[in-house]
Amino acid sequence: MVTTRPIAASDLDLVCRHREEMFRVSNAPGRTEEILRTMTAAFRDWIAPRLNDGRYFGYIAEDGRAPVAGIGLMIIDWPPHPSHPREDRRGYVLNVFVDPSHRKQGIGRMLMELGEAEIARRGVSFAVLHATRMGQPLYEQLGWARTSEMAKLLP
Amino acid sequence: MVTTRPIAASDLDLVCRHREEMFRVSNAPGRTEEILRTMTAAFRDWIAPRLNDGRYFGYIAEDGRAPVAGIGLMIIDWPPHPSHPREDRRGYVLNVFVDPSHRKQGIGRMLMELGEAEIARRGVSFAVLHATRMGQPLYEQLGWARTSEMAKLLP
Repeated sequence: MVTTRPIAASDLDLVCRHREEMFRVSNAPGRTEEILRTMTAAFRDWIAPRLNDGRYFGYIAEDGRAPVAGIGLMIIDWPPHPSHPREDRRGYVLNVFVDPSHRKQGIGRMLMELGEAEIARRGVSFAVLHATRMGQPLYEQLGWARTSEMAKLLP
Repeated sequence: MVTTRPIAASDLDLVCRHREEMFRVSNAPGRTEEILRTMTAAFRDWIAPRLNDGRYFGYIAEDGRAPVAGIGLMIIDWPPHPSHPREDRRGYVLNVFVDPSHRKQGIGRMLMELGEAEIARRGVSFAVLHATRMGQPLYEQLGWARTSEMAKLLP
């Protein structure tokens, strides 16, 4: 039976593993193992204080006592925008990952519903995420839509 | 003759006007005048301290002494990512606006090139923006590409 609990500071290794695996299976061009390892080491340093003080929060799904999935959440500072004209914050959903052994069981959906509710509970009405190819169909089912964001690696 | 200068704290009204006009001409569904006015009032409160302390920076283009275009820039905190595996910051480009009287003269491109160079000069190698329909062709010419960002208005 799969249950959920809030992320704790002691989940640092687990969160880092979920993020690295998420990017590994997304299989985007140019993401070598060396880049993933470098990213994870830097992410670990970045996330540790945020896990400790609660700026990074979220949920872990467990099958018995074994963690099998996770979702990360943050509230980020953002300029008031026509989609949230009175609010200067956005919810950000990241590091959504379900172990291959536990996919297609609704765990990702359960974590997303918990995450959306927690962002709303904190008084934030607009949220964003970056979808992997694997995650995109679920997010669409839940009412998420593509934005006009563009990016560039600067020379 | 059009020249450029850095944005100053005294440009608060101008930056707010550029942002509101940018969203007005983008003509996205559901953006009423009331929403735009509400957004601009909240944005003004949000941006004023950031203009004062330099967290919001950028350039204004002037024709003689009259401002005719602007670009805003920020460096935002962001988790290390495969696109910037060692860096925990991203550049953010916003409020790009050229007065209707001065379009199709290369002013938007000039401001973007200044902005990209300034972000890179600050040691940040990856930048994002949200494109209006009017801006998207220019950004594509400059090497910007769509991301997988998705958004949801939470119930």
